Amino acid sequence: MVDTINRQWLLNRRPVGAVVPEDFRRVDGTIPEPGPGDVLLRVLYVGFDASQRIWLTDHGGYLPPIQIGDAMRTMGIGQIIQSNDPAYAVGDIVEGFMTWEDYVIVRADGPMPLRILPKADYPLTWNLSILGVSGLTAYFGVTDVLKVGSGDTVFVSAATGATGSLVAAICKARGAAKVIGSAGGPDKCRWIVENAQYDAAIDYLNEDLGARLAQLCPDGVNAYFDNVGGDMLDTTLLHMAPKGRVVICGAMSSGYVDEKVPGPKENFMQICVKMLEVKGILLLFYRDVLEDGARQLGEWLAQGRIQMAETIVEDFEQAPALLATMFTGKAPGKFILKLADPV
Amino acid sequence: MVDTINRQWLLNRRPVGAVVPEDFRRVDGTIPEPGPGDVLLRVLYVGFDASQRIWLTDHGGYLPPIQIGDAMRTMGIGQIIQSNDPAYAVGDIVEGFMTWEDYVIVRADGPMPLRILPKADYPLTWNLSILGVSGLTAYFGVTDVLKVGSGDTVFVSAATGATGSLVAAICKARGAAKVIGSAGGPDKCRWIVENAQYDAAIDYLNEDLGARLAQLCPDGVNAYFDNVGGDMLDTTLLHMAPKGRVVICGAMSSGYVDEKVPGPKENFMQICVKMLEVKGILLLFYRDVLEDGARQLGEWLAQGRIQMAETIVEDFEQAPALLATMFTGKAPGKFILKLADPV
Repeated sequence: MVDTINRQWLLNRRPVGAVVPEDFRRVDGTIPEPGPGDVLLRVLYVGFDASQRIWLTDHGGYLPPIQIGDAMRTMGIGQIIQSNDPAYAVGDIVEGFMTWEDYVIVRADGPMPLRILPKADYPLTWNLSILGVSGLTAYFGVTDVLKVGSGDTVFVSAATGATGSLVAAICKARGAAKVIGSAGGPDKCRWIVENAQYDAAIDYLNEDLGARLAQLCPDGVNAYFDNVGGDMLDTTLLHMAPKGRVVICGAMSSGYVDEKVPGPKENFMQICVKMLEVKGILLLFYRDVLEDGARQLGEWLAQGRIQMAETIVEDFEQAPALLATMFTGKAPGKFILKLADPV
Repeated sequence: MVDTINRQWLLNRRPVGAVVPEDFRRVDGTIPEPGPGDVLLRVLYVGFDASQRIWLTDHGGYLPPIQIGDAMRTMGIGQIIQSNDPAYAVGDIVEGFMTWEDYVIVRADGPMPLRILPKADYPLTWNLSILGVSGLTAYFGVTDVLKVGSGDTVFVSAATGATGSLVAAICKARGAAKVIGSAGGPDKCRWIVENAQYDAAIDYLNEDLGARLAQLCPDGVNAYFDNVGGDMLDTTLLHMAPKGRVVICGAMSSGYVDEKVPGPKENFMQICVKMLEVKGILLLFYRDVLEDGARQLGEWLAQGRIQMAETIVEDFEQAPALLATMFTGKAPGKFILKLADPV
């Protein structure tokens, strides 16, 4: 083992409202000792996900909340340094739940087993982006929940996000007729059309969403991939086609600051009168079929039918600032922090 | 033709909030003359549905709004008096959209064709209740939307209503393990258990809904038949099992006084984290398969597996009062007004 210092970002206090760097505390710890059944990892990359804001609340959402003084939970890629679990060998490169630290103990009884990454000729980081939570959520949201098919008109909110920036390409690979994305400001709107296979963009900061949807989708929206919730969902319900489908993937508009996220305020009964199908997605429900999704995405990548946008930062000191940036969306695609190269 | 007077209830003003009898005006008109393609009916029975409150708003919901001065729209049973449509013969007994009048012209281009009722040995009113909108909505809601099956735990709001009072029996016929209903007050709670095949009742006026759901459904609710919306839906979302299904059939809690019906205020993201499926039902979408539903319900009726509760009133002067009573739910089952016997 080369290092003796374990850099860590610990939760200093629960964020109130938006995350700020002061919610975390940078300390240098020691390298932990794995117990029976545990593995010790060197963390190589960590990804940033909106779910992390939920884990920071005192309820935690679908996972136990992160406690004050704990290292911040993250999805990451690491290399096994020491293994007391026969399923993992020293040197294996794995993906799964980790923490903002150089060295992490992963317990066999955690929420999801570490996945050993196959040797491949694509960048390791793709396992956090297109072949990780963001890409697989886009994949199963489009194929299993929305069941996008030939001729569908699809609308996607937060279309520059790690998930949203992949949705259009997956819809196109499934035969969708038209995919429209929402983004904030003309630069991001241009980006999704030029780089992410969107047919058109709606600038929700400067345009009337309802009027633009009516214009771009005169026969209504067949499938809505919702990352935003709130007023945007409410308005979109009015523009859904009869028997349209909606996948609730996130509620970025809420900032996830509170456990209580309100549903649509005005147009909820569109669900009834148009017989809409509104369904959630959480990747934990797909744990047995994740490899199938990754295989299909890998094929489309090899065929050049989908692309991935990543922003990779190498400065560990920036971890909290990058999490905060998630919600202001300054750059498109997946945010990744690099800690080390594999050996 | 025996009568020369056509009793009518016209819309006098748009109701503000709850419907009151003064929103309607009783006049004696003349018997109208059918034009080319039209039929003239003698109205025999009319049913009362919550949708009628929506048709009274200035937006109308899924049908054009009823205009001030128009006769009130209703589902009804009538007998053909005069026919300029080769599909209907004088004497046929039909079911479909009518108005609060003795004599009604039905136009061939209306929202749904009149359905000729088969000669049968059961009461004509069943075509408005169990074999009409209420029963068929319960049927398709349970079988097609919720797909209730063996072992399911089902919760039903407004369980004394025309639809809710049928849901438990249909769920049981499909093999559900447990069906729980909500109703207001101990009398109605007793009624649904003794008369409508509910396994247990929750008195939402006097009990804590969340605590009772937790107690009665320790593994969560697999399927929720929602007639109420609002806070009851919001609380129930917290008690749904992972991958549970919800059918949005109505929002009685809103009174339908306004086009804007809010969704759940706090627990909307349960849809995401539990991967719930929330879907609406509107019977117009089933127009091609209504006969299939009626046939299955007829079989279950003949086998004594389902029963229907009806409250039949014979006084035409009471029509507006009966509509108002829908929302206070003074009696269980389907409200029907009788105008005449067939000849």
